[in-house]
Amino acid sequence: MDQTQKLINDGNAAVDEMLTGIIAAHPNHLWRPDNAPRAVVARHGPREGKVGLVIGGGSGHEPTFLGFVGKGLADAAAVGNVFASPPPQPVVDAALAANGGAGILFMYGNYAGDVMNFDMAAEMLEMESIEARTVVTTDDIASAPRDAREKRRGVAGNVFIFKAAGAAADMMMSLDEVERIARHANDRTYTMGVALSACSLPQTRRPNFELPVGEMEIGMGIHGEPGVRRGPLQSANAVTDEIVDAILGEMNAKAGDSVAVLVNSLGSTPLMELYIMHARVAERLAAADIRIHSALVGPYCTSMEMAGASISVMHLDDELTTMLDHPCDCAMFRVG
Amino acid sequence: MDQTQKLINDGNAAVDEMLTGIIAAHPNHLWRPDNAPRAVVARHGPREGKVGLVIGGGSGHEPTFLGFVGKGLADAAAVGNVFASPPPQPVVDAALAANGGAGILFMYGNYAGDVMNFDMAAEMLEMESIEARTVVTTDDIASAPRDAREKRRGVAGNVFIFKAAGAAADMMMSLDEVERIARHANDRTYTMGVALSACSLPQTRRPNFELPVGEMEIGMGIHGEPGVRRGPLQSANAVTDEIVDAILGEMNAKAGDSVAVLVNSLGSTPLMELYIMHARVAERLAAADIRIHSALVGPYCTSMEMAGASISVMHLDDELTTMLDHPCDCAMFRVG
Repeated sequence: MDQTQKLINDGNAAVDEMLTGIIAAHPNHLWRPDNAPRAVVARHGPREGKVGLVIGGGSGHEPTFLGFVGKGLADAAAVGNVFASPPPQPVVDAALAANGGAGILFMYGNYAGDVMNFDMAAEMLEMESIEARTVVTTDDIASAPRDAREKRRGVAGNVFIFKAAGAAADMMMSLDEVERIARHANDRTYTMGVALSACSLPQTRRPNFELPVGEMEIGMGIHGEPGVRRGPLQSANAVTDEIVDAILGEMNAKAGDSVAVLVNSLGSTPLMELYIMHARVAERLAAADIRIHSALVGPYCTSMEMAGASISVMHLDDELTTMLDHPCDCAMFRVG
Repeated sequence: MDQTQKLINDGNAAVDEMLTGIIAAHPNHLWRPDNAPRAVVARHGPREGKVGLVIGGGSGHEPTFLGFVGKGLADAAAVGNVFASPPPQPVVDAALAANGGAGILFMYGNYAGDVMNFDMAAEMLEMESIEARTVVTTDDIASAPRDAREKRRGVAGNVFIFKAAGAAADMMMSLDEVERIARHANDRTYTMGVALSACSLPQTRRPNFELPVGEMEIGMGIHGEPGVRRGPLQSANAVTDEIVDAILGEMNAKAGDSVAVLVNSLGSTPLMELYIMHARVAERLAAADIRIHSALVGPYCTSMEMAGASISVMHLDDELTTMLDHPCDCAMFRVG
């Protein structure tokens, strides 16, 4: 099988070299503590009395997670290898840098490796008398049935969920409140994706699964986890309708409600196609008398060069609207 | 040959459907005049007494050009089909919407079709007593020799060049001054790219040229125009060095000078690879005692799903630094 065309040096060094580049490009936003090369911290985020919001997970999804570290959003991120959870130490490093004495909230997508490592980090922090709680994101509605939401994976809807929790922390709310808002945000966020191609790890440069040209897989996860169905590649409108139908079926929105929408590229699907999909999302929501309060369109949670897209919808209420509109200033994402 | 996997409906409708989606996603930033579907205007840009900055060109390079329409940057853009110049009428439509009575500056990449159509639009505006001048961008140093800069193409460095002119116009400078700063910005901006794959038009879904796996083409243009050499795909550092060497060879920067850097994805090359390249750019510039004032890393001027990247460097002086740091608020790009 052909190798994937990548501009890298050593596949095993790709994540560390990427981090060197990120710190070089964004010195006013991001820094790394001494001896903690896999913990990236917001320059103007952490402060006394504030809940520290720590996110993280495997690399390869950029701008998730590093792009959402900054004032008003996450205080720090722990960085794993490509598609691999960070071990406990970088999580602890990130938490110590984010610690303002008001407790730490861990937020990350619901994957077994991340759960194990963040839980170990929480135990290590407990020994230093730092309380760390956890809210895992479970927005991928294709990844488990509705009555097993706790088994679902976290994907692109992370952006909205992290944003809501980050705003709450930036408003100096208590750990109880930040945790409550994080869970509330997760409960009201729904994502479903479609893959049009595989991607490949820098170490192997080989596609991580087979998807023949002319086919698509609806509901595939951001690491190539199996979706809900594979079939012939359909039109943008047909694919968008299938995803929007699934989301509306779960969301229980009524006429007049507001939502935030994210049409996300998994990597190589360009803005042109995302905006074509967004046109259909807007048409469908207007027909249901659901108002789009804000829209994000672009690569927010990727699988390197995977072709495909996902649609996320957060069902807003007054509290979540306030949290989404709260300013944030990250290296790769800004509001307000 | 295999079809490219695209999420579109009708290839011939892709640009118009994209525009529908862009306006739906960014109603607070962008609007279109009645009966001018291919002119996109900044909601808070044009105003009385201000030079109107109108940019444009073929589609398929998003966020170029539409993403740079907004307060502090371009007032309007004329939108062509994929890789095809807009005809004169949308250019006139964009200019009329951008007109504040202080003259219009057209800025676009140096391509024959664009020159012809924007020049015709300028003549049409002259009949309405609106003065329109033109500054074409010629930042692609691989596209013609140094002593024939007027033959060079405009590529990703557009972002910096448009930004400088947009700031000058936003500061209510005269048409003479905005034009002077636009030329000055273009003179001091240098770009070179590398292609790792072809892309394909929505109408055909077929690659627009052949580039075997394992090879790269240094200097290739954003529509697949031939580059300066084709050869085996090299490491990110080797590719970056070749591009940086070429740029430094033209730039005549001295120790202590400052630059703005853009490491741009041509489409499917992900952030991970761009930041690896940026790490090398930063290392090389530090070794030459050249300071990076600001850095942009991401997809800014794409060729849909083409794999590859480009590096742009603007050689700053006090005036250009002021112009780059001036605030702008566009749907897909913000400063300040």
